[in-house]
Amino acid sequence: MTPRRNGRDVNLSPASVRLAGKTVRVVGTGLLGSSIGLGLRANGITVVLTDASPSSARLAQDLGAGQLAAAGDVPDLIVVCVPPDVAADVIARELADFPRAIVTDVTSVKVSARDDLAARDVDLSRYVGSHPLAGRERGGAISARGDLFIGRPWVVCREHENPEIAIRLVEDLIHDLGASVIEMTAEEHDRAVALVSHAPQIVSTVMAGQLLAASDATVSIAGQGVRDVTRIAASSPDLWVQILGANHGAVVDVLRGVHADLGAVVDALDSLDVAGSRSTLAHTLARGNEGVSRLPGKHGQNRKFSVVTVLIDDRPGQLANLLAEIGDLGINLEDLNLEHAPGAALGTVEFSVVPEAVDRLVTDLEQRGWRVAR
Amino acid sequence: MTPRRNGRDVNLSPASVRLAGKTVRVVGTGLLGSSIGLGLRANGITVVLTDASPSSARLAQDLGAGQLAAAGDVPDLIVVCVPPDVAADVIARELADFPRAIVTDVTSVKVSARDDLAARDVDLSRYVGSHPLAGRERGGAISARGDLFIGRPWVVCREHENPEIAIRLVEDLIHDLGASVIEMTAEEHDRAVALVSHAPQIVSTVMAGQLLAASDATVSIAGQGVRDVTRIAASSPDLWVQILGANHGAVVDVLRGVHADLGAVVDALDSLDVAGSRSTLAHTLARGNEGVSRLPGKHGQNRKFSVVTVLIDDRPGQLANLLAEIGDLGINLEDLNLEHAPGAALGTVEFSVVPEAVDRLVTDLEQRGWRVAR
Repeated sequence: MTPRRNGRDVNLSPASVRLAGKTVRVVGTGLLGSSIGLGLRANGITVVLTDASPSSARLAQDLGAGQLAAAGDVPDLIVVCVPPDVAADVIARELADFPRAIVTDVTSVKVSARDDLAARDVDLSRYVGSHPLAGRERGGAISARGDLFIGRPWVVCREHENPEIAIRLVEDLIHDLGASVIEMTAEEHDRAVALVSHAPQIVSTVMAGQLLAASDATVSIAGQGVRDVTRIAASSPDLWVQILGANHGAVVDVLRGVHADLGAVVDALDSLDVAGSRSTLAHTLARGNEGVSRLPGKHGQNRKFSVVTVLIDDRPGQLANLLAEIGDLGINLEDLNLEHAPGAALGTVEFSVVPEAVDRLVTDLEQRGWRVAR
Repeated sequence: MTPRRNGRDVNLSPASVRLAGKTVRVVGTGLLGSSIGLGLRANGITVVLTDASPSSARLAQDLGAGQLAAAGDVPDLIVVCVPPDVAADVIARELADFPRAIVTDVTSVKVSARDDLAARDVDLSRYVGSHPLAGRERGGAISARGDLFIGRPWVVCREHENPEIAIRLVEDLIHDLGASVIEMTAEEHDRAVALVSHAPQIVSTVMAGQLLAASDATVSIAGQGVRDVTRIAASSPDLWVQILGANHGAVVDVLRGVHADLGAVVDALDSLDVAGSRSTLAHTLARGNEGVSRLPGKHGQNRKFSVVTVLIDDRPGQLANLLAEIGDLGINLEDLNLEHAPGAALGTVEFSVVPEAVDRLVTDLEQRGWRVAR
């Protein structure tokens, strides 16, 4: 595992840039491709960009993700960032077009692309499948960020025929983007993402689908719990049909367990007075406690910062007034989250600030008449 | 609905406090009871506290949630904040012990307690069931916050025999705590929480249970999606067996839908090459998109409103300057999301505004020299 790099302490001196002097070709300038370009450019690495849509490639260039690919480019490393159902075709074409380059991809299912490639006449020793566990709800170059991968895991699937130099080049990319290398076989990877990504997607989607029938009053009392459970249900159907289709066997294995456990809960609730029903519920809930505790790290983001909540009026200018006063105090905001009170004319703003600033922020804002909670 | 309260102009004079001069008795000093005490005390209202555990009541007193209940107390309003399986007993006892007081409770299931009470010889005209949709992952007085209810919905279940004055007293409590009154029948309430709280709890729990079998490498690549889906799986099994048991009929109705939809996805993934399988997946995912968009607040807003992204310098005062200019334009911000690019000197602010305001916002901000994307 790579040592975790902290966004604030990244050393941008050339000595620490592993791909210094190399050229990286990014194929597909959506969210991931553009974010890779931005992250590499921040390290001074040469990046050339191409996309099936020329205007998408030009947008990524305008955003600073690299220069447009041109005849005569000699990339050392090619990163294929295209949708799953065209990934194998694009990887095969890049391997053929650039016979000295190492090619990786960021597709979220690894076995099917590899097996598809194995059936073709291409040199697979130069292909190293990989998958960064990073993303955002909104796609496209406009949502790209050079820091998208900092501190995130990035799976590398070593195949026996890969020379060490090919693996090392892909790991250099990952390190330069601030992510952590995790080695797995393609099969291990696909089973893992079925459990921690693909099955949760379906569970979230199916729960969210039940909300279609809800009255307005019902959804007005929805709290953070159902919001969290259904957040990823907003993901793109097109993309997810491709992902689920490519990994259906592993996903079904997990979903069968969910389906059976859910059926047992329904049966227990349906016959609550039968001996054992309540213990089935208690056992299922306790297993859920244990299961969620297996996830490493803290839940939620911004835990390294402290949160201060301020009540504001829900009208133009209020937030500006508040922020102007915080600006006067010289306190930098690490994050800000605006929440509206359902049906009420007020909202709350949650500020994340460094813990050392909390006391002064709360005291000063209260002196100025704001209603503040920490 | 709550009168507009303004962070800058909060009037804490007795005139704005609806329960001013009244005494509120809080029975059960866990998270909710202690938070109610703290919120009322902040408004100068007299609060007396009692709990089956004297040390728990003393802790709540020490935290500032009120004074210990004593012989001779004459409460105007009693708020029962005890676990669901003892709620009816405690409500009945309080109605008997304080024959002039209005009694409410904060239990998360309303029909079963009401029906249980109806079978007893108590004066139900003085009982008004209610349920604040607020909570924290950690329970107990030590986690209590006087602002726990600010901006949150709080359901009031009016029964025909309730005199207007009883309803009004409970609504005054809710308003003084900064929450919004939502009126529903007990039946409507229980169906609503089955959909937006109890079923999501089971879905989260059952998904989390599958993680027990995961390898360390597998959980090491878990991202924000599975964390969000399974966050509430950490909830207390004891409490949830009570809640689910009290609302089993309504919960089963929702879970049967989840179970059937999940089964259809498993079947589709299992026979992916059969005609219609991929369209079943796409249709289910699209329904999930629609369902989650029904939730008001942040998620719903991201769909109803348009997003404008502005690039800012990552230093104090920049955001305030930007918001001051937007305030000048008279455009209200529905949501705001601040993103830092760690290690870079730039951040982005994403504004959600009504679609009609986008053109003017973009044009005016660009004229003023901001870098804007829509």
